[in-house]
Amino acid sequence: MRNAKHLQNLEPSYIREILSAATHSDTISLAGGLPASEHFPLPLLRTAFNSVTATPALFQYGETRGYGPLLDCITEHYSLLPSQGAMVCNGSQQAIDLIARAYIDPGDTVVMEAPSYLGALQVFALSQAQVKTVPQSAQGPDLEALETLFQRHSVKFLYAVPDFHNPTGLCWSLDCRRSVARLCRQYNVSLIEDAPYRQLRFSGEALPLVSSFCPERAFVLYSFSKIVAPGMRLGLLVGPSSWLTTPEKIKQASDLHSNQPLQAVLLALLNSAQLAAHIEGVCAVYRQRYEALARNLRQHFGQCARFSEVEGGMFIWFYLPADRRCPEPMALAREALSKGVAVVPGDVFYRTDDPLRLSSAPALRLNFSHAQPEQIDCAIARLKNAFDDLST
Amino acid sequence: MRNAKHLQNLEPSYIREILSAATHSDTISLAGGLPASEHFPLPLLRTAFNSVTATPALFQYGETRGYGPLLDCITEHYSLLPSQGAMVCNGSQQAIDLIARAYIDPGDTVVMEAPSYLGALQVFALSQAQVKTVPQSAQGPDLEALETLFQRHSVKFLYAVPDFHNPTGLCWSLDCRRSVARLCRQYNVSLIEDAPYRQLRFSGEALPLVSSFCPERAFVLYSFSKIVAPGMRLGLLVGPSSWLTTPEKIKQASDLHSNQPLQAVLLALLNSAQLAAHIEGVCAVYRQRYEALARNLRQHFGQCARFSEVEGGMFIWFYLPADRRCPEPMALAREALSKGVAVVPGDVFYRTDDPLRLSSAPALRLNFSHAQPEQIDCAIARLKNAFDDLST
Repeated sequence: MRNAKHLQNLEPSYIREILSAATHSDTISLAGGLPASEHFPLPLLRTAFNSVTATPALFQYGETRGYGPLLDCITEHYSLLPSQGAMVCNGSQQAIDLIARAYIDPGDTVVMEAPSYLGALQVFALSQAQVKTVPQSAQGPDLEALETLFQRHSVKFLYAVPDFHNPTGLCWSLDCRRSVARLCRQYNVSLIEDAPYRQLRFSGEALPLVSSFCPERAFVLYSFSKIVAPGMRLGLLVGPSSWLTTPEKIKQASDLHSNQPLQAVLLALLNSAQLAAHIEGVCAVYRQRYEALARNLRQHFGQCARFSEVEGGMFIWFYLPADRRCPEPMALAREALSKGVAVVPGDVFYRTDDPLRLSSAPALRLNFSHAQPEQIDCAIARLKNAFDDLST
Repeated sequence: MRNAKHLQNLEPSYIREILSAATHSDTISLAGGLPASEHFPLPLLRTAFNSVTATPALFQYGETRGYGPLLDCITEHYSLLPSQGAMVCNGSQQAIDLIARAYIDPGDTVVMEAPSYLGALQVFALSQAQVKTVPQSAQGPDLEALETLFQRHSVKFLYAVPDFHNPTGLCWSLDCRRSVARLCRQYNVSLIEDAPYRQLRFSGEALPLVSSFCPERAFVLYSFSKIVAPGMRLGLLVGPSSWLTTPEKIKQASDLHSNQPLQAVLLALLNSAQLAAHIEGVCAVYRQRYEALARNLRQHFGQCARFSEVEGGMFIWFYLPADRRCPEPMALAREALSKGVAVVPGDVFYRTDDPLRLSSAPALRLNFSHAQPEQIDCAIARLKNAFDDLST
């Protein structure tokens, strides 16, 4: 059957190829954005799972907005303002999709950071938005470039991942957060602040949400995939209450509501006194893995080991030496895969036609949340091996 | 924020008003399409819920297509052809949405039965399809009218609920099934066969799926909301394998995949030797409730009690006397609500601008799956009371 017209050019995704190859038992994957399975809070979830069948109402049709007691808990847990509301979604991915379906007309301009989260790029491509990108510095987006975009285009949304960005791992400075909020207000741009990694901070000080400086014009997306478990597919769309009405109608047509038994299980976890300790534990594990990754990169690549030093999240952005004898990221990723380690070349996090893609420094995204430290040791040895084989 | 342009005319839904009013504790609801909560197979699900946390892989990211062992089981359970594939969705509602997003361009023609399932009407409105409707007889759609539509328009999809239709409760005859499949082949129309009520047959003989006569050009949607529990939000999109590729990509962008723990719970239930007995039990309960409803209608409305006699499902279509002294369905529904019984006026199951809406006989949709027999007795007494008060 012929696809809908705007889908005719759906590109095959190289990252899916890699992720699929990375499931071979012998391959160590630094490619995906997978949390550490062995640190899911399953002991904390067990009691809730055991009791869920005692409440038949959880198995009946529910409200599109979400399970009432969970929504009440979330209002408190995330300190929502009286002007804000929340809707439970199938992961924060669905929240992006619902916003796009509710508010984006074909041709509307959406600004994103480059490189960008692929799942958001996919959604904005489906909604036929015109995507403009802004380059990043270590402090956050290039403010001058951002303001120029806001001046030149009638920008509907700025989509951003200010805490431990995917794919670069960067965290916006406080000044940058304030400035971006000010620009959004000044140019009447709505912010979509995607915050899935925010609670995965293992050093430094937590900074306020960008949207806390412009709550009246911002959606915030929370995910339970990183602090609980992604297989449960639960996330949150938070925003000014009036902004939730249309996404809620779209969700009603799209899947009626998110499943209720797992919403009840999540509620039990949010109410658990042990949740904070669980998240601290996960952060400690990720810190250790990040340090193993950094140590290995320095050890194997020596002076060439240039990467984003991060204070949390799941990723670093590893710059390849800007040297013509050095392999291209894509070629290196393929060679590394043949040697048993999966990594993602930086190029794939740009739209194919993004000018910033061409001018970007060659890089790889490396994940440190999934593989264990001894696997990371082995993975970076293999990566260096692939690098050497391709260097001339 | 301004909605996307094609959403400017999102209509408020009267049925949502009714369903919301119907939650008042004193109101008996014959309005929704809710299964009987007290007959969910919770004892059969308990063991699966208790063991799910023993498998961390269920809590990790999964495949967009669905949980592998569940897909294998489904292939067998639903006797899929070698040419067919399946994808797990968040209820069959999401399957309709994914098909529409994958294949419908604004202006494409979709044919539906009138009256129609509201959730499908919503999806096709979102996708900006041009919806044409075909009237129904007791045997199924009016074949002559259907062929005329297929001749006059380049029809992309026929969406139909051939087993215990929502809202009318009708079940297509075998001849009608063959004829519709033949017409779809002849005019190159793709069929979307929505089969959520199919397994709720309490009398008569099961008939083959319409799509079994044209499997190469049909999607089939299965729901676990009626035979298991709707709160779990699990359904299936089945169709020619090549037709699933694009919906799968849309689902990936939309929510990555359906939650895995509940897919594993569902798998355990499908493998349970007691599932067949559970479904038989539900059918027996619904038969009893249907009989209570029919008896009460005859008793209270006497010769005026004209309704679709059904062999399964959840609904009947209750024709109001075509008499000018008789109340309008909408007025009757409101009066009934004030007397403590919720029913849905037939008009709401038509598009506002559907010519068939004006020519349709006045009717109510009455649900018999949710209320218990003694509640049904009371509900129909209240309905008659409202009817008498409004009759002049």
